[in-house]
Order: sequence, then structure tokens, then C-alpha cells
Amino acid sequence: MREALKSGRPINKIFVAGEMTGGPLRDICFLAREKRIPVQKVGRRRLDEFVPAASHQGVVALAAAKEYVEVGDILAGAAPGEAPFLIVLDQIHDPRNLGAILRTADGSGAHGVVIPRRRSVPLTPAVARASAGAIEYVPVARVSNIVQTIEFLKEKGIWIVGADAEGEEIFWDARLDGPLALVIGGEDRGLGRLTRERCDILVRLPMAGRVNSLNASVAAALLAYEVVRQRRKVLNEGVPRS
Amino acid sequence: MREALKSGRPINKIFVAGEMTGGPLRDICFLAREKRIPVQKVGRRRLDEFVPAASHQGVVALAAAKEYVEVGDILAGAAPGEAPFLIVLDQIHDPRNLGAILRTADGSGAHGVVIPRRRSVPLTPAVARASAGAIEYVPVARVSNIVQTIEFLKEKGIWIVGADAEGEEIFWDARLDGPLALVIGGEDRGLGRLTRERCDILVRLPMAGRVNSLNASVAAALLAYEVVRQRRKVLNEGVPRS
Repeated sequence: MREALKSGRPINKIFVAGEMTGGPLRDICFLAREKRIPVQKVGRRRLDEFVPAASHQGVVALAAAKEYVEVGDILAGAAPGEAPFLIVLDQIHDPRNLGAILRTADGSGAHGVVIPRRRSVPLTPAVARASAGAIEYVPVARVSNIVQTIEFLKEKGIWIVGADAEGEEIFWDARLDGPLALVIGGEDRGLGRLTRERCDILVRLPMAGRVNSLNASVAAALLAYEVVRQRRKVLNEGVPRS
Repeated sequence: MREALKSGRPINKIFVAGEMTGGPLRDICFLAREKRIPVQKVGRRRLDEFVPAASHQGVVALAAAKEYVEVGDILAGAAPGEAPFLIVLDQIHDPRNLGAILRTADGSGAHGVVIPRRRSVPLTPAVARASAGAIEYVPVARVSNIVQTIEFLKEKGIWIVGADAEGEEIFWDARLDGPLALVIGGEDRGLGRLTRERCDILVRLPMAGRVNSLNASVAAALLAYEVVRQRRKVLNEGVPRS
């Protein structure tokens, strides 16, 4: 375990038996903190559910299904002259939603996806399955603080577009053809307040019925494909859409 | 059980213990066939997984989370002068996808959803959960034969639009503002051959990356919201879009 941590192998989270203390576990927790990997204390029973009791020695690490990248790597993935296009996810919990969003990111030509280190499902095997292979192709950055990442993106000239039920414009009326990051909130509560306040524009999805929001992966796809559509229009017509 | 069947209470499926034969079970199977409820023979063990062994007497019925309607009821749900808008699902297996599609149907103002009686997830509690309440508002018809239903819809003047990777037009270039049924294929194989052949037009989603399709509920939402967009455009401009 200590070796896995030192080698820099991507680890989503570490579970340690709350009942155990002492040398080796303390070292591991220290190393994990250094590498900003979340550590959670759980009962031995919980660890036994992950792996046979004999083999975990009081600590279990969940490896990522794929290596993470840095946000800068995502920006660098845009071709020369091409406007960066990112999808930032604020607390998506359902692995199927994250998988479906990775699939949409691949299909829509997004340069990458950003997820927070905490309060988000990481790149697990369930995410990989739901992504139908897209996890292999879409760069994913895992950041400590989504709000700071948004500030960083703004400094780089990226326009921040949040999806919010109270958004001032319907998504298809907003201008989405420049350098841009879509910010999609979690399944339960949508965008967090701090995140919402940092957005340059909030757009809404028209809701004709009685339910007041769509599934998070559906919302992400509607916005992502609106970006595709507007970018194609600019390419075809040679001028930005009015 | 016989009483539940006779009362017409909506039942998705009946499981009977394959080891058991004889009077009462035979009656139930006969009644189920009359009402076109799928009956599946399984081992007693499987039944024991559904309910405590003592209580099932060799037969278990799965009740629907909501009553089904007829396809004609869906058409009748369109307001006078309003063009009907249906979503027809060809073999969606994942309850979360069906739930997300019901949510999208509600949000996009579709008049109803059609699912096949076999090879599709029915309206289960998992579908209800994933629908975030939309299951209560969106009429769902469950039909024996999707191809026959498509023929019926065509006779009623409904334009049949299938989502297919080989579609001749990108979805946003197709005209989607009239009376219309979107046909969405299942997670594994997309539209069945017979279904595809019955469509008036096949539209495709642009795929920029390496994965060749999107999640089924995502595909359904992109098409459904294109319908919303085109219908609003007609309303606002007073003329059909060219």
C-alpha cells in the first residue's frame, strides 16, 4: 500500500479500519494526506466487504479506473486555433451519470471533464462501464476545489456557463461558440451557491411539465450538443451566430 | 392472485415455479395469457428471492408502479390543434434510462411514451425513482408489438422519426415540428431491423469522438428537445421552419 501511494498510482480513496491505530496505518494516512487522497475511517466489517478479511490488514485503497490529468492538460488538448471546451461537474454522485457524461463528452468533442476530489463519484469501474469505452478517450481532471478551478479557467479566457433552473436565458439562446466550460450540478441539488455565483452566465432548460429538472447527464448532453451545433454553424457560415 | 388478475390491476409479469404444475397455477397462466401478461417459469429459488418462501405458493406477480394507458389515450392527450408528440422506446432495459426518459418526456411536453410488453423494463419502482416523479404525469402505453403500433401511428398521420447511427440527416437538420413519434432503440443494439424499416426518416447524432453512440436516455433527450425547439420556433415566427 505504501508503495502504491509512493509510486503515484492513481487512487480514488483510502479506507482504514477505525479500530486500528499505530505505525503502519499512521504512515499511510500521512502519505495519503500529502497526496490529497481522501481517507475515510470505517469499521472492519466494511473493509471485509471490499476484500476477504485476511488480506486487508486494516486498510483498503480504491484505485482509479484510469489516470487523472491536470486541468492545464485539458486546455492543452485543444488544437491550435480551436476554442477549448470543458465540462465541469459539481458533485455528480451516480456512476452511471458520470459514465454517460464521459460518453457525451467524447461524442461532442469536449476536450475534457473536471470533477471534484470530494463529494463526487471518482473514476470507478462502474463509471467505466457506463461510459461505453469513453473513459479511455476523455481526459478527466480531479480537483480539490471547483470554485478555484473556475477562477483559473476564467483567467485563461474561458467563458463559464452554468446550468440552473433559475437561469436567465434558455440554453439555445445563449452564445456558446467561444472558449467555454459548461458547469453541471449534482443530482440532488444542482449547482452549489459558490459555484453558481462564479458563472459568467446561467442558462436554463425549458421545462414544459411538472417535474422541475432533468437528469444530470441529460442536462449536460443538451448543453454540450448546443455547443457542437453553434460551433458548426460558425464553421459553416464563417461568422459567429448573432 | 387470480383476483388481482381478474380485477385488471396492472401487472408487469408473472413468475411461476417451473417445478409446480396443476390446477391453480394452470388457471392463473390461462388468465394471464388472456390478459397478455408475460409468464415466466423459474426455479422455486428465484421465487424465494422475491418473497419469503412460505408466502408465494409457487407464483409471484410483479405489479406495475403505475397504470398503463392505451396508445389512443396518448394521442387524445394532445390539445385541440396541437400536434401529437410521442416517444416510442424499442427495448430499453435499464430502469434508470427509462426513468430519465420519462423525466425528459415530462420536461419536453411529450404526450406519452410507448414501451413494448416484452424485452423492455416495465414501470417498476426503480423506474419511478429514476423518473423523479415524472412517472406520475407521463402516460405510458405498453404494447405487444412496436411495429404494429408504428403502423397504427402512421395511419393517424404521425411522422415516425428513428434515431440511428446510419441516419441520413443530423437530427437538427430534420423537420420535427409536425405530429411526430421519436423512436429510440435499446442500450445494446439500437433500433431493431423491422422497427428501423418502418421509420419515415432516420436521424443521427453527430459523434465527434471514438465512441459511436450516446446513452439511450441522452439520445432521446437530444431529439425531444429539438422537437421543443422547432415547435417554439413555429409558434414564435408563425411559419414552419424551412
